[in-house]
Amino acid sequence: MLPEFVKIVEVGPRDGLQNEPVWVPTDTKVEFIRKLAQCGLTAIEAASFVSPKWVPQMRDASQVLQQVGPLPEVRLSVLTPNLQGFQRALEADAQEVAVFAAASEAFSQKNLNCSIEESLERFRPILEQAKGLDLPVRGYISCVLGCPYQGEVAPQAVVELAQELTRQGCYEISLGDTIGLGTPRKAQCLIEAVAQEIPLEQIALHFHDTRGQALANLYAGLEMGVQVIDASVSGLGGCPYAQGASGNVATEDVVYLLEGLGIATNLDLPQLIETGRFICDAIGKPSQSKVNQATP
Amino acid sequence: MLPEFVKIVEVGPRDGLQNEPVWVPTDTKVEFIRKLAQCGLTAIEAASFVSPKWVPQMRDASQVLQQVGPLPEVRLSVLTPNLQGFQRALEADAQEVAVFAAASEAFSQKNLNCSIEESLERFRPILEQAKGLDLPVRGYISCVLGCPYQGEVAPQAVVELAQELTRQGCYEISLGDTIGLGTPRKAQCLIEAVAQEIPLEQIALHFHDTRGQALANLYAGLEMGVQVIDASVSGLGGCPYAQGASGNVATEDVVYLLEGLGIATNLDLPQLIETGRFICDAIGKPSQSKVNQATP
Repeated sequence: MLPEFVKIVEVGPRDGLQNEPVWVPTDTKVEFIRKLAQCGLTAIEAASFVSPKWVPQMRDASQVLQQVGPLPEVRLSVLTPNLQGFQRALEADAQEVAVFAAASEAFSQKNLNCSIEESLERFRPILEQAKGLDLPVRGYISCVLGCPYQGEVAPQAVVELAQELTRQGCYEISLGDTIGLGTPRKAQCLIEAVAQEIPLEQIALHFHDTRGQALANLYAGLEMGVQVIDASVSGLGGCPYAQGASGNVATEDVVYLLEGLGIATNLDLPQLIETGRFICDAIGKPSQSKVNQATP
Repeated sequence: MLPEFVKIVEVGPRDGLQNEPVWVPTDTKVEFIRKLAQCGLTAIEAASFVSPKWVPQMRDASQVLQQVGPLPEVRLSVLTPNLQGFQRALEADAQEVAVFAAASEAFSQKNLNCSIEESLERFRPILEQAKGLDLPVRGYISCVLGCPYQGEVAPQAVVELAQELTRQGCYEISLGDTIGLGTPRKAQCLIEAVAQEIPLEQIALHFHDTRGQALANLYAGLEMGVQVIDASVSGLGGCPYAQGASGNVATEDVVYLLEGLGIATNLDLPQLIETGRFICDAIGKPSQSKVNQATP
């Protein structure tokens, strides 16, 4: 049973640019986000309040957010890995924050420098303060279909983490196939397991296309009624832990799929293609979207 | 209901190399085909007996076929667009031939220089002679999910052509989404319509990945029980009428999907990856397979 409408969460300005090696000037980032909004996107992940030492690409997160300012009908979210980042996000008037956990103990240790349990402890004050401020918090779970270090990840580990993040106040859980290991039935089994514990409409799919499986996996998720999909225009970014150039699934390709399935998105595909070209020109890289490549 | 086993028809040496601009020496083609056989492939489209004037890449089709010779448990097929090509194929001891029609009148005129009806007339003597010789004939239908010239293609046009080719003696009908316009539900509607007239096990899917939808569409076909998939190792080739670099779906990516779905193929994926690299090195082009790119 396909959904009638799917919300796309555009992660290009954050998950995308954060993983591109080049520096993108603040003005370009701001123009990029404005263009994305003009495509009809209402959920845009705009920046990450991480340490500039580790992720210099995001060192202008505050300026980006403040220069963009409030956009009608758009919610700009930012990644806040810790309380310090959360404070900076508040000062920059972020409209939503996101926290990031891993379903794999090995990935949590290597990527977040702490255990899964410790990462949850780290988020707790963020979620508490956000609740007091009525600020929506999104929860990311990475490695839901496999981990570059430990291989298999038990669906139960994802389910428990999703439950815990929801209990702590996350309004939406984004299930990340961080290195694109999944295939459709595996994705469906996971979604089924998670949907037994948290409402289906609170589940988002964040699938990377590292092995070309993302659209097939998304289609499998849509068949189960999933209504939220994360995508990055022109496939910007990707996971630095995944070999190969490909990373995030491209928004253009997802929208082409959704349109072909008769699912409404309220997005302007030609304008998305144009925006993908704008940012790819800016970073000097060809678009990773096949729809974009195939369009004259 | 997924099938338990899927036969991959490897089209790299023909549909792939035919659409690559560089000349591949005969010895390399021969080694390529032998390597493919070592991966476990039993159906390999080895060459095309077309006019060397139009497709110089295939001018050594006879030598390729004769140098490869019979391979145990492998059937080497060749494309024979007309009676002249068919005679050459017979002289070269082809084990199977294929004919190629279009479901779009406009594409038939531009690509085959004749109407659909005339192309069927052209195939008739090939199919008659093949029957007398007990030589299997495969029928390709292109543009089944859309045409670069006329846009929409009615499923009924595909169904009628599939019926006619089957009546004339084709043992398998390969449904080609030549410029990769399809999406999953459209593909399923088409398969359903064709399967009402010819047995499902005689239907092959030949989907191009021009817009990144091929694996999603193949998964949709697998859900309907389709058991034969055409693919090209490392995504070699593509349609010259399609803008953008991408064409045939990559065998490696299809096999990764099938393995993930628990569908047997009897193929050796690491060896396929190695073979993809061998031929990509030979033509000086990066592999278009994401599984290949993601493999160290």
